Amino acid sequence: MIISILSIGDEILAGDTTNTNSTWISRELTKIGGKVDRQITCQDETKEIISSLSYLKNFNPNYIIITGGLGPTDDDITRKTLFDYFKVDEKFDKEYWDELVSRFKKLNIQIVESNKSQAIIPSIGEVLPNLIGSARGYCFLQEGTSFFSLPGVPKEMKEMMKHSILPRVAKNISNPIFRKLIRTTGVPESTLAEKIIKITESNHDCKIGYYPSVHGVDIRLSGTSMNKVEKLFIALQNIFGDISYADRKISIEEVIVKHLILKKKTISVAESCTGGLIMHRITNTSNSSKILNGGVITYSNESKTQFLGIPSNLILDKGAVSKQVAGEMSSRVMSKFGTDYGISVTGIAGPGGGTIEKPVGTVFISISSEHSTKVKKFMFGNDRERNKIRASQAALNMLRLSI
Amino acid sequence: MIISILSIGDEILAGDTTNTNSTWISRELTKIGGKVDRQITCQDETKEIISSLSYLKNFNPNYIIITGGLGPTDDDITRKTLFDYFKVDEKFDKEYWDELVSRFKKLNIQIVESNKSQAIIPSIGEVLPNLIGSARGYCFLQEGTSFFSLPGVPKEMKEMMKHSILPRVAKNISNPIFRKLIRTTGVPESTLAEKIIKITESNHDCKIGYYPSVHGVDIRLSGTSMNKVEKLFIALQNIFGDISYADRKISIEEVIVKHLILKKKTISVAESCTGGLIMHRITNTSNSSKILNGGVITYSNESKTQFLGIPSNLILDKGAVSKQVAGEMSSRVMSKFGTDYGISVTGIAGPGGGTIEKPVGTVFISISSEHSTKVKKFMFGNDRERNKIRASQAALNMLRLSI
Repeated sequence: MIISILSIGDEILAGDTTNTNSTWISRELTKIGGKVDRQITCQDETKEIISSLSYLKNFNPNYIIITGGLGPTDDDITRKTLFDYFKVDEKFDKEYWDELVSRFKKLNIQIVESNKSQAIIPSIGEVLPNLIGSARGYCFLQEGTSFFSLPGVPKEMKEMMKHSILPRVAKNISNPIFRKLIRTTGVPESTLAEKIIKITESNHDCKIGYYPSVHGVDIRLSGTSMNKVEKLFIALQNIFGDISYADRKISIEEVIVKHLILKKKTISVAESCTGGLIMHRITNTSNSSKILNGGVITYSNESKTQFLGIPSNLILDKGAVSKQVAGEMSSRVMSKFGTDYGISVTGIAGPGGGTIEKPVGTVFISISSEHSTKVKKFMFGNDRERNKIRASQAALNMLRLSI
Repeated sequence: MIISILSIGDEILAGDTTNTNSTWISRELTKIGGKVDRQITCQDETKEIISSLSYLKNFNPNYIIITGGLGPTDDDITRKTLFDYFKVDEKFDKEYWDELVSRFKKLNIQIVESNKSQAIIPSIGEVLPNLIGSARGYCFLQEGTSFFSLPGVPKEMKEMMKHSILPRVAKNISNPIFRKLIRTTGVPESTLAEKIIKITESNHDCKIGYYPSVHGVDIRLSGTSMNKVEKLFIALQNIFGDISYADRKISIEEVIVKHLILKKKTISVAESCTGGLIMHRITNTSNSSKILNGGVITYSNESKTQFLGIPSNLILDKGAVSKQVAGEMSSRVMSKFGTDYGISVTGIAGPGGGTIEKPVGTVFISISSEHSTKVKKFMFGNDRERNKIRASQAALNMLRLSI
């Protein structure tokens, strides 16, 4: 099955709007076993829309999903363009217009003349209902391709996809693609690939994709045989072991919060160079108040002494960015907040503050529990924001492996 | 000038990754007066890449910017495809390989055989440096079109765009569009529009766009006459006054950090429902250590008492989410850390914890200085992550207006 998406909108091409519609449509189609082959974004211009449609049509797709340009204002030209392209006439849908008038009245919104364009329907082709907005969609058939046209407003587009399009596509998927995800962190892409080279070079009949980001590397497996994808997934998981933290698109903080709630354990955090990011990430997760009592951001040396009681001569002696201070921070924040675990990070985020011995990117992370304190040294790069993210990810990963 | 973008990546077509690269590239090109005509996303497949390039080439573009597929693993086929498409040979760049080996060694990362592919260069064509990653880019010229190929990692792509591509494109723009930006926060779009209606309905010969987000509303002015854009900008700024916090794409936290450094003032923060986000945002800014001494995340009631000394009977009496507790938090964190200002936030981020009297989204924000404590109540919505962002933005805005 071949599926394409055409997004129509100058605002996307100007970089004012991120094309999250294409992401959402693609994800929903992937979920039901479909596969989007290509996405195009074009201007609100007749010849651009037609040229894009013609290009997509070359591949004989089963479906072309078009979004955008169905509003009531002059710059919305999708309807007229499609009617011309499919050579259908305009008809005025009086019944729908009356319905719109009464809907607008109920919402206390003035209906204007230009809204009338939204009651225009094609002489041939199907009208797709829009239960939450005024712009309805269309479906045209041509030489085996179904063309769906939907409004660009994400909420309306999603409702109409769910209501009118996804069920139809699902019914026609004969060879669904099966997918599995392995989320990893702390190990670079090339090392991961090396670890599993024997398996990946064997005859597994699946596609393997590596998706590195600042949070780690996602590995995606896909194939037409559920058994083969499953078998490959298990073989890789056996090798990766706890390098992998999830098998679906959830964050490491969600994994941790769930795990801690299950174990009825609590944490507290002392952050220096991460400046609040670790706690921000944890508190983005629902129910995090059950496991996070709180924490301190001890950015200055004095605050490390004042709020955590770290001896100022230890800081003078070993430096604020040191194994010893990191260890003291995690064990002291744990006992101050009376939690089961204490997490601490101290490092040089940059751009300033580096020395030859401790260059920008040097970070110590420590995890304390009742029984022990474990400190690790990391060397990240030169970029401040990236260092914060990488340090927070490494700290969360150390915590995950400790609980 | 015609510019097209080609994004290569199965992860985008599967809906796993939103194509923010295209948004960013389009926005940056728009900023320098350029205009992107079309964007295509295709699979990591040779014939798909070639078919997309051929389609884009039909329009005789000046530039085609290609991202993705330059990594070291097998699924990254952009390099090989482009070399074949432009009929150039592969050369191994020994010097670059030696550099990579020593770079990896410094970062304590194992370099593996597959990384060698990243030292391959074309016999004809230009190599674009990547100062922060291992995958370099390429530039090929064909019949008046410059093809740029960049890695898909956003950070690296952006650096390389800024360094190697935007300056070249800028030089060739003959009829530039002039733009001005007004960043506002705390006032809804419709109210802003109402305030300036007399001016916007006058004959100003510019385009005005409103771009609302969770951080506020950006207003973009553009036109072909620098004078007219400038005149409109000044007229609007006069009306907005301090509703506007910046005239370029910088964050409110950057504005604050600069301002505080100039005034030699320091701050400390006590966060509850924002869970570290305020300090995370401030510490994303360079030199923030000069103005932020530190802070506490007092998520639980006990920690509010233990770390800030807020009387537990005040919390019992008024509630942790109250004007009184917010005021105590900001004045106490200020004196504990010995700073010039104290900021506090306490609220109900959701999804749980709401009551009829204090529904989810109720937030109190307080700013203390030597002379006064000012508390404001806000009502945000139902969404946890959005509430955190809106509360942090409102707190930073209150701080901005207090210093």
